[in-house]
Amino acid sequence: MAAEPADERPSVQAVLQRVTEVLRSHQQKLQSRHEAPAPQQVEALLHKQDLDALQASLDQIHPADVAYILEALPVDERLVVWDLVKAERDGEILLEVSDAVRETLIAHMENRELVAATEQLDTDEIADLAPDLPREVMQDVFRSLPLEEREQLRAAMSYPEDTVGALMDFDIISVRDDITVEVVLRYLRRLDEMPDHTDQLFVVDRTEHLRGLLPVNRLLVTDLDVPVSKIMVDETIRLNPEEKAQDAALAFERYDLVSAPVIDRDGKLVGRVTVNVVMDYIREEAENEMLSAGGLREEEDLFSSVWNSVKNRWTWLAINLVTAFIASRVIGAFENSIGKLVALAALMPIIAGIGGNSGNQTITMIVRAMALGQISAGNARKLFAKEIGVSFINGLIWGGVVGLFAFLIYHSWQLGLVMMSAMVLNLLLAALMGVSIPLLMQKFNRDPAVGSSVLITAITDSGGFFIFLGLATIFLV
Amino acid sequence: MAAEPADERPSVQAVLQRVTEVLRSHQQKLQSRHEAPAPQQVEALLHKQDLDALQASLDQIHPADVAYILEALPVDERLVVWDLVKAERDGEILLEVSDAVRETLIAHMENRELVAATEQLDTDEIADLAPDLPREVMQDVFRSLPLEEREQLRAAMSYPEDTVGALMDFDIISVRDDITVEVVLRYLRRLDEMPDHTDQLFVVDRTEHLRGLLPVNRLLVTDLDVPVSKIMVDETIRLNPEEKAQDAALAFERYDLVSAPVIDRDGKLVGRVTVNVVMDYIREEAENEMLSAGGLREEEDLFSSVWNSVKNRWTWLAINLVTAFIASRVIGAFENSIGKLVALAALMPIIAGIGGNSGNQTITMIVRAMALGQISAGNARKLFAKEIGVSFINGLIWGGVVGLFAFLIYHSWQLGLVMMSAMVLNLLLAALMGVSIPLLMQKFNRDPAVGSSVLITAITDSGGFFIFLGLATIFLV
Repeated sequence: MAAEPADERPSVQAVLQRVTEVLRSHQQKLQSRHEAPAPQQVEALLHKQDLDALQASLDQIHPADVAYILEALPVDERLVVWDLVKAERDGEILLEVSDAVRETLIAHMENRELVAATEQLDTDEIADLAPDLPREVMQDVFRSLPLEEREQLRAAMSYPEDTVGALMDFDIISVRDDITVEVVLRYLRRLDEMPDHTDQLFVVDRTEHLRGLLPVNRLLVTDLDVPVSKIMVDETIRLNPEEKAQDAALAFERYDLVSAPVIDRDGKLVGRVTVNVVMDYIREEAENEMLSAGGLREEEDLFSSVWNSVKNRWTWLAINLVTAFIASRVIGAFENSIGKLVALAALMPIIAGIGGNSGNQTITMIVRAMALGQISAGNARKLFAKEIGVSFINGLIWGGVVGLFAFLIYHSWQLGLVMMSAMVLNLLLAALMGVSIPLLMQKFNRDPAVGSSVLITAITDSGGFFIFLGLATIFLV
Repeated sequence: MAAEPADERPSVQAVLQRVTEVLRSHQQKLQSRHEAPAPQQVEALLHKQDLDALQASLDQIHPADVAYILEALPVDERLVVWDLVKAERDGEILLEVSDAVRETLIAHMENRELVAATEQLDTDEIADLAPDLPREVMQDVFRSLPLEEREQLRAAMSYPEDTVGALMDFDIISVRDDITVEVVLRYLRRLDEMPDHTDQLFVVDRTEHLRGLLPVNRLLVTDLDVPVSKIMVDETIRLNPEEKAQDAALAFERYDLVSAPVIDRDGKLVGRVTVNVVMDYIREEAENEMLSAGGLREEEDLFSSVWNSVKNRWTWLAINLVTAFIASRVIGAFENSIGKLVALAALMPIIAGIGGNSGNQTITMIVRAMALGQISAGNARKLFAKEIGVSFINGLIWGGVVGLFAFLIYHSWQLGLVMMSAMVLNLLLAALMGVSIPLLMQKFNRDPAVGSSVLITAITDSGGFFIFLGLATIFLV
């Protein structure tokens, strides 16, 4: 981390290094046993003063930094460090770690500790943790809350992931529109502190309906006797708890928001969304996309057990195997031709591979434009035309190159021509499918980002083998 | 867009729809000609009142929304809309559109218009546009700036992309630490408005050295006679203009910042970074990663010319072709064996394909952990052990499945055994390379996210063919 905290505070990387050094000073003793050591065993081997020193440096750093250190440690060391963290910070840190790491921490805690950790959090944060907590823990937490917070928690838990409701918090300061700036300032000065990310107050009427927003910065530059109604902003983004989180994220990015009000169907103010939560959401979405593009089902704890990793990677390998079997049978159908002209076997992966590459280029572009809402029935035809044009040119160019390659190695211009034609046809297939697959997925309300790439690769593989071997069978064998 | 602006303002999607309807009402006339129509021709065919109505709705929406509409339109329609946009908003909109679309807009503008558009912007924003502007335009803009802003612009342009300096702006309000809250408030009240995203004031000493931060919210809840030095925060993130933008982004995410000070080596305050810029940066990075994973060199205008698209996709297709040639030669070396046992040709893509899939899973996980700084020499050995374990188990499982598949189709248990062994070996190769490639790239200071996937696929393709055909040659032929 290059971001430098002031001198008094140790840097995160320094703490991480100290943690690993201390924990591993005893590694040799531990490694003589064959199974992974339990955290108690590790702890027992460490000196009391080492542990105290570690604890002191952990206490000095931000909860998000502790979370970072926990993520970077193998499970046994992670649990030793977790035991050193002050109990009153447990809740915040659990919120910061990834799902996979959170599981390992929670599994290591007693229900009593979990209840204590959870009770320190705001209701919207409790709702975020809830899916990972044992049922009894949630019941205890629920009982301990005052009535208003119970209702907030129930509301927050009722919204599905990926909706604005799941991102929302309840830390709102609302004021009425018939008072003056001076009254607002006097009211604020009576508070101990304002909630994080309060860049604006919410102006409501008598019945809690949102009338407008009062930016804090405007409050500071306005004369004291001006009424709120004069300086409030009424043209404003209003979010609904049911709408997609993705749409809220787009609004934050597009309009550079720090916070935005959430209103229910009647226009009543129910909560707010803040930029830090949106930023986490954007990061998480981008990561999920990367993971699924890489063939992983979900985020994986870097040090999860071999077995958990096998399960995480299972789905895509299985799907891939099925598509590979199909491609294999397509080739199998032409075994006769291959037997007569073995060069076909060596050349066919080129046609399939470049087709897959080209199809993925098209699909990446279309899926991205789709996510931004830039694709409609109106411009689909234009896109088809463009992609087919690109593929045709690429097919001629790269088809020419591979045709030449085939000719130079096998000294048959007929083989070269078949290579070139197969390349053109497979790239056209890739373009057609690269545009159609996401459009069809969108039409049937499926996320075009998931699975499109596997599908196009399957089609250009089997299709490429079929086109190439088919043409070869007709013209060469 | 589900985010609802207040009723007076038309929704973006509604404007986009109206734009396309009006523009396309004359499409039939235009389509009778064969080439794409020039914007002037489109304009000439439209009624004056239609254009006025369009202009009115464009004026009502946010510059970011206009940018969105421009992105979603084919080039000819895009330029008609661009001509309708009020000149004083040109600068802001140019900032919002993607690089590819910006090029098309700038190419359509006269230097005089470009100078006028640019002069409306802040110096940090001018620096963002600068690379896309003609040299003469930048010279004119530069000459028109007051001395202080010239220096800011020169500074902003001197920092490479992907550094904090490139994200930084100069809209800082700084106060001295020896005054009271009351004096600060009186000073602020004299301003017309505060810069966007001012969640804190910067506390400096006589020589402009940063002493601490004064959160605006703390200012509002503190008694008037308290001195700034009492309530300022001194343990704070300080960024340097030279450090990596990525590190600043991590700090914003981890510590939920809205703004952060940028100081030079002497500790002097030179600017600030705000969350909206960081969020754009994160989104852009994620998109670049997706694009390069999909084999595109850079963001592509959805409606760019066929030729521009061909160029954008060139690099990866060429690289892929080279790796395909190599794989083809590996197979070529075993043509003899394939001639004797044609089943090998049908089965070999399975081994290569699953190997590539598995290698990409490993690499995706490692690259992600690397970006978060979670991988060190200390835990590399643990990662190797885990990945090899995962691959071995996967190899046995999926190798068993494909071995059975081969046995059922070709009725040879020897062939089945060779398939299974080849699968285990290729997955082990994939694991070894999946961990080594990113580690090596990091060691040689290259971005492990770029090219790793192509490299691993090339290795598991050629390697898979070699292992499978090699084993088959030894044991079967």
